[in-house]
Amino acid sequence: MKTVQVSLGDRSYEILIASGLLGQVGELLGNRGIHPTIFVISNSRVFELYGEGLLRQLSDRGCQVIKSIIPDGEQHKTLKTVGQIYTDLLAHRADRSSMVIAVGGGVTGDIAGFAAATLLRGIPYIQVPTTLLAQVDSSVGGKTGVNHALGKNMIGSFYQPELVCIDTDTLSTLPAREFQSGLYEVVKYGLICDPKFFEFFETHLEKIQKQDSDVLEEVISRCCAIKADITSQDEKEKDLRRILNFGHTFGHALEVATKYQEFTHGEAIAWGMLVETHLSRLAGFLDESTSKRIMQTVRSIGNLPPIGSISIEILVEAMKRDKKHQGDQIIFVLLKGIGTTVITGDVQAKLLAEAWEQTR
Amino acid sequence: MKTVQVSLGDRSYEILIASGLLGQVGELLGNRGIHPTIFVISNSRVFELYGEGLLRQLSDRGCQVIKSIIPDGEQHKTLKTVGQIYTDLLAHRADRSSMVIAVGGGVTGDIAGFAAATLLRGIPYIQVPTTLLAQVDSSVGGKTGVNHALGKNMIGSFYQPELVCIDTDTLSTLPAREFQSGLYEVVKYGLICDPKFFEFFETHLEKIQKQDSDVLEEVISRCCAIKADITSQDEKEKDLRRILNFGHTFGHALEVATKYQEFTHGEAIAWGMLVETHLSRLAGFLDESTSKRIMQTVRSIGNLPPIGSISIEILVEAMKRDKKHQGDQIIFVLLKGIGTTVITGDVQAKLLAEAWEQTR
Repeated sequence: MKTVQVSLGDRSYEILIASGLLGQVGELLGNRGIHPTIFVISNSRVFELYGEGLLRQLSDRGCQVIKSIIPDGEQHKTLKTVGQIYTDLLAHRADRSSMVIAVGGGVTGDIAGFAAATLLRGIPYIQVPTTLLAQVDSSVGGKTGVNHALGKNMIGSFYQPELVCIDTDTLSTLPAREFQSGLYEVVKYGLICDPKFFEFFETHLEKIQKQDSDVLEEVISRCCAIKADITSQDEKEKDLRRILNFGHTFGHALEVATKYQEFTHGEAIAWGMLVETHLSRLAGFLDESTSKRIMQTVRSIGNLPPIGSISIEILVEAMKRDKKHQGDQIIFVLLKGIGTTVITGDVQAKLLAEAWEQTR
Repeated sequence: MKTVQVSLGDRSYEILIASGLLGQVGELLGNRGIHPTIFVISNSRVFELYGEGLLRQLSDRGCQVIKSIIPDGEQHKTLKTVGQIYTDLLAHRADRSSMVIAVGGGVTGDIAGFAAATLLRGIPYIQVPTTLLAQVDSSVGGKTGVNHALGKNMIGSFYQPELVCIDTDTLSTLPAREFQSGLYEVVKYGLICDPKFFEFFETHLEKIQKQDSDVLEEVISRCCAIKADITSQDEKEKDLRRILNFGHTFGHALEVATKYQEFTHGEAIAWGMLVETHLSRLAGFLDESTSKRIMQTVRSIGNLPPIGSISIEILVEAMKRDKKHQGDQIIFVLLKGIGTTVITGDVQAKLLAEAWEQTR
């Protein structure tokens, strides 16, 4: 088992990563004090795989365990689903001594985390991410929230879990497309701050694709450690944390422009990284050979759905609505090299269009 | 002008109390850095009184100012109204450099504060409370939130404002019943921790009722200082802050049992304080003469709507659903004397019924 410590004063917590960890959740919770009532929030597909086993473990330790099943999919990441959780939990008399366990991908974790953050002004929760994307990204750092018709993740809180339990075995039941999507966020960590990890990724891609469990444990814990380090230094996304958004300025806009229907989050971020790598080069930050190496590695992860005929104007409009922009500026995280970023709000519209043209 | 400092580390802020302060909000904000866009959230009645003047002051300083009018009344303190604010603010491109100013009573402040806490995972906000209850209670301490069909304030966040501006002049436009309601929370502060302030209240009640502006400034700043002191020591309501709930265990239950239709919050809390004073005596914590003095002072504030035929069983049921209870225990803040409390989860059902009978 690998352990990553997230240091945030009295909101500090641990991320545990191991093969088979789901079978130990009851024991782990038992060691951490008693919660008379535990709510397991999951979607029906994930609950079918892991729910009953988890319920049994927790019931065996004398907890009252109640499941709350929410619909799956980004289109259900809404206030309405959060409202359903509130009603479920309140109907079963949730109080501040209760505990929420979110079991599932990023959507489930974000929704359940936001419900936990805002029910009774905050009840403790544990993340059990079961997708690669959730394991390396959304479950770490305390961002919770839901979408709004006018933009992704527009409603939410910074709210830290008590514990994150990552069982690498859950990845074996993940559809191939979902696993591939997670790898784009993995490679991002190397690109923004860890050239050695980028190299490790390049040289171990085959083992990663085959889900070799030692390599997966190493990869996931490295990603968690990087994200934990960044979020510990900048919990509220004022400065350093923004480097995590490499690929996300274009990526989010692409998701908005296609109404979250055509790309998984990881695929949209992959396209975003490709455009923003071009942009880094066009803006004079990145040399051509490094740019080529990056694009080759990103593309070697797998095929991406085509970006078709989306116009740059529609994307720019979506970027201006993104909550990370300040006034009229669009903020980009660009690369100066592998592992080195530059944040700029000063990119000419002409360059954006050119980077977009060169990518698609 | 009086200033009360709320000390919460990097979330510290000031409460300013003065006659005529609303005319200085533009200047006060100007001294605190620039927010390109300011959203003034208010209800139509309050906006009619103070809105245009505020908008003009802020526009004069070069801010883009947008009003968001929400419906008035406890029945609109819901997620639906919060959703309306999200849509309003996002449609006008709110970003993290924007600022929310909540102008109104406790309902407006709680809703707007929760919207500010959760839009874009938190944008800065300022409270301008215009009712006595909001000035001495809900605007201080960072509790924000809305009601749920299954209970009051079940959904919310702890989220601190940047500044609280209290203009005592706004009380002159307040309906008499609302002003009276606020006085019950005022007297509560004396009862839970400040015998000198309780005495000041008793001896100055006539001037307070006549809204003598020096006395009001003194009274409001004392209440804010007490609440600020308590919340600074216990932001997340783990321990000390619970003493603020004197009168609230029964009071909240009364509101729930009458579906928030028959009593203002202050009136419900007044009844709650009367019942819980009886209870303090019946449980052996409080002597009879002090109990009489307290009830006389509470009753001297004004007439209360009758509590009629509500049964103790219905109230107990509502109390058990309150988010402050732990498991099956109902937690009470009781008095050992004027200014001294005891928190107990160990009150016999028989005593509750007796205290209720003696009160009504």
